Amino acid sequence: MSYNGDFIGKIREKNPIVHNITNYVTANDCANILLGIGASPIMADEENEVEKIVSIADALVINIGTLNQRTVESMVKAGTMANKVGIPVVLDPVGCGASDLRKRTTLNLLEKVDFSVVRGNISEIKSAFNVKNHGSKGVDANEFDCSEIEEICLMADDFANQIEAVVAITGSIDVVSDGKETFIIKNGTKKMSRITGTGCMLSSLTGAFIAVNKASAETVSAVVAAMGLAGELGYSQGMGMGSYRVSLMDNISLMDDAVLREGNKIERFK
Amino acid sequence: MSYNGDFIGKIREKNPIVHNITNYVTANDCANILLGIGASPIMADEENEVEKIVSIADALVINIGTLNQRTVESMVKAGTMANKVGIPVVLDPVGCGASDLRKRTTLNLLEKVDFSVVRGNISEIKSAFNVKNHGSKGVDANEFDCSEIEEICLMADDFANQIEAVVAITGSIDVVSDGKETFIIKNGTKKMSRITGTGCMLSSLTGAFIAVNKASAETVSAVVAAMGLAGELGYSQGMGMGSYRVSLMDNISLMDDAVLREGNKIERFK
Amino acid sequence: MSYNGDFIGKIREKNPIVHNITNYVTANDCANILLGIGASPIMADEENEVEKIVSIADALVINIGTLNQRTVESMVKAGTMANKVGIPVVLDPVGCGASDLRKRTTLNLLEKVDFSVVRGNISEIKSAFNVKNHGSKGVDANEFDCSEIEEICLMADDFANQIEAVVAITGSIDVVSDGKETFIIKNGTKKMSRITGTGCMLSSLTGAFIAVNKASAETVSAVVAAMGLAGELGYSQGMGMGSYRVSLMDNISLMDDAVLREGNKIERFK
Repeated sequence: MSYNGDFIGKIREKNPIVHNITNYVTANDCANILLGIGASPIMADEENEVEKIVSIADALVINIGTLNQRTVESMVKAGTMANKVGIPVVLDPVGCGASDLRKRTTLNLLEKVDFSVVRGNISEIKSAFNVKNHGSKGVDANEFDCSEIEEICLMADDFANQIEAVVAITGSIDVVSDGKETFIIKNGTKKMSRITGTGCMLSSLTGAFIAVNKASAETVSAVVAAMGLAGELGYSQGMGMGSYRVSLMDNISLMDDAVLREGNKIERFK
Repeated sequence: MSYNGDFIGKIREKNPIVHNITNYVTANDCANILLGIGASPIMADEENEVEKIVSIADALVINIGTLNQRTVESMVKAGTMANKVGIPVVLDPVGCGASDLRKRTTLNLLEKVDFSVVRGNISEIKSAFNVKNHGSKGVDANEFDCSEIEEICLMADDFANQIEAVVAITGSIDVVSDGKETFIIKNGTKKMSRITGTGCMLSSLTGAFIAVNKASAETVSAVVAAMGLAGELGYSQGMGMGSYRVSLMDNISLMDDAVLREGNKIERFK
Repeated sequence: MSYNGDFIGKIREKNPIVHNITNYVTANDCANILLGIGASPIMADEENEVEKIVSIADALVINIGTLNQRTVESMVKAGTMANKVGIPVVLDPVGCGASDLRKRTTLNLLEKVDFSVVRGNISEIKSAFNVKNHGSKGVDANEFDCSEIEEICLMADDFANQIEAVVAITGSIDVVSDGKETFIIKNGTKKMSRITGTGCMLSSLTGAFIAVNKASAETVSAVVAAMGLAGELGYSQGMGMGSYRVSLMDNISLMDDAVLREGNKIERFK
């Protein structure tokens, strides 16, 4: 795809505040990658203050990893307030299928909050799609097979239309759809899955991208490509995972629109 | 000791899921080191979902650092469920002697959960031994002097027999006993104590090792040697601690059974 | 200023225990930087044990980032106990102005706990100064303009006299005052603000410095200079933020009083 965006330039110019309600495993990485791309992270999950924090933020990212009863309430409150004040919201339904609590939380959030982007790996998005369509106690039936890239694209498209949001499925294959346009992004390396939190970091980065750019399939494809490209640029044969993680952070902080224009492998599916 | 294990090979082949209920200080390091060795980490501590998460995991690691009233309940529930479904459980009684809450929690866990491995530094294991034998309000009497390596080995052996688990004492001296066999492991460097979470990381790695290998003194000695060896391979004179930490992660991710076979310094005590 | 301290030497000799009640975003960095400087970190925030942990510590650091209702109670309990047993306490009022909860918490802590040092960026300290003088519901009036370095120094001096503590304002300009002496510290680089937690890390380091050195403007200036100098020594043109973060940790762990004596840019204002 011809890439003409100045997505990263705008982030660095405007330094948007990205409020994250996220897990304690990767919160530090999410904060650092947001700083790296030029945004200002705030992490805050206390029910008594999340609405106030949302009111000073430019985007909200809700990540349900290490959720607990306290933070689940905060997520709903923050998301509702974000809709009220008109800032975009990203949902990362981490491990959605792994427990009933996560399914219920995902369903509850999808019902009460209008999201701009929902991003997860294939199993998380399949699970989110299922709870949306069959309820959190529904069977794990799925209209789409998802063993083929085409089926994944069709599910992304269908889900995007249902929830009127951009759906991003990332992992070994990356697909982004807003229900009208659907892209396949071929950046990234397999090794990225051996670093914890690459998905969480991508969701936080997405918050930065859509805080100052339109929450379209094009914008979300750009951030997915940026993360994958950072992984490509940083990897060399025989590298240990500690060094690889450092280089990933380096490459996001050094990336700009010219690098992304040159290196992105975004292809139109629909 | 002649080392014939293919402990790491099995982990990389089977990618066991290791469920960690752990502290927020080192959770990221624990997740990354598990990915480095070839396992799949899940961090989850909410009472309403831990039993479900345990049911899809291949091992459970309970680490009481930054425990709180909420997570203490989750630890008991998760441990009980792990016993029920038959997956091995590791206990890391972080800072056991530092507060009554930690002593009570350790005692409660030792009473309600059958652990496969208990791993801590000498002061934590002494304290865990004390609460087991004298209750959490008991005096800090200890039958063993522990200023000598022999005494440490005897305590490990005694404790292992009492709780029918492998006991691993790590720090400047590493001892592993299952009550029948006892090993002294001489890998590692003093500098490792200047990186936070080397103990936590080792406990999580132990979860990966015993998820797919027998929870024996031999297996646990191997993982202790692997961690120490990663520390040896990564250190050079005058190195700063930031770089050392990265190299430790590199060396775990690059380690295999051949490296461990060559570099381990496991000696039989009994 | 002529610098004759052996601040770091004393830390490495005495290995003080620094108890941190801090946020989950930067807790790992705080623990690692404390180990790097030669102190022993303990992170513990459960109400039922913080008093006990304080009783074995040499300093307490209270950082209100990612505060919640549970930890707010722990902060008051721990601070009160620290005063009782006579160990110094550092307050880091992270994001003080961002929510009423943070303002109330800061005011409550300033009223109930005698702090040795309060450290924050200019906006946090202005907000803390405001809540102290006008209550947490007061207007954000401020007697000081703070657009000029002189005004910042005067506010630091005034606030220090009010709360009988050392006040450290850090960021693009660093000012430290104990109400009698006021110093401007010109170490550091702009790039440090692109790494999360440099403020939190500095607050934790301050705990280590004042655990074994007098909590004076001189001591606090030294630790502020140490952090800035680590940032200067570690930065090179075109460096990515992942590598820069590693080098910051390296340089703190390799720093000693001779390096600090040579490289500090502490100037007396008053």
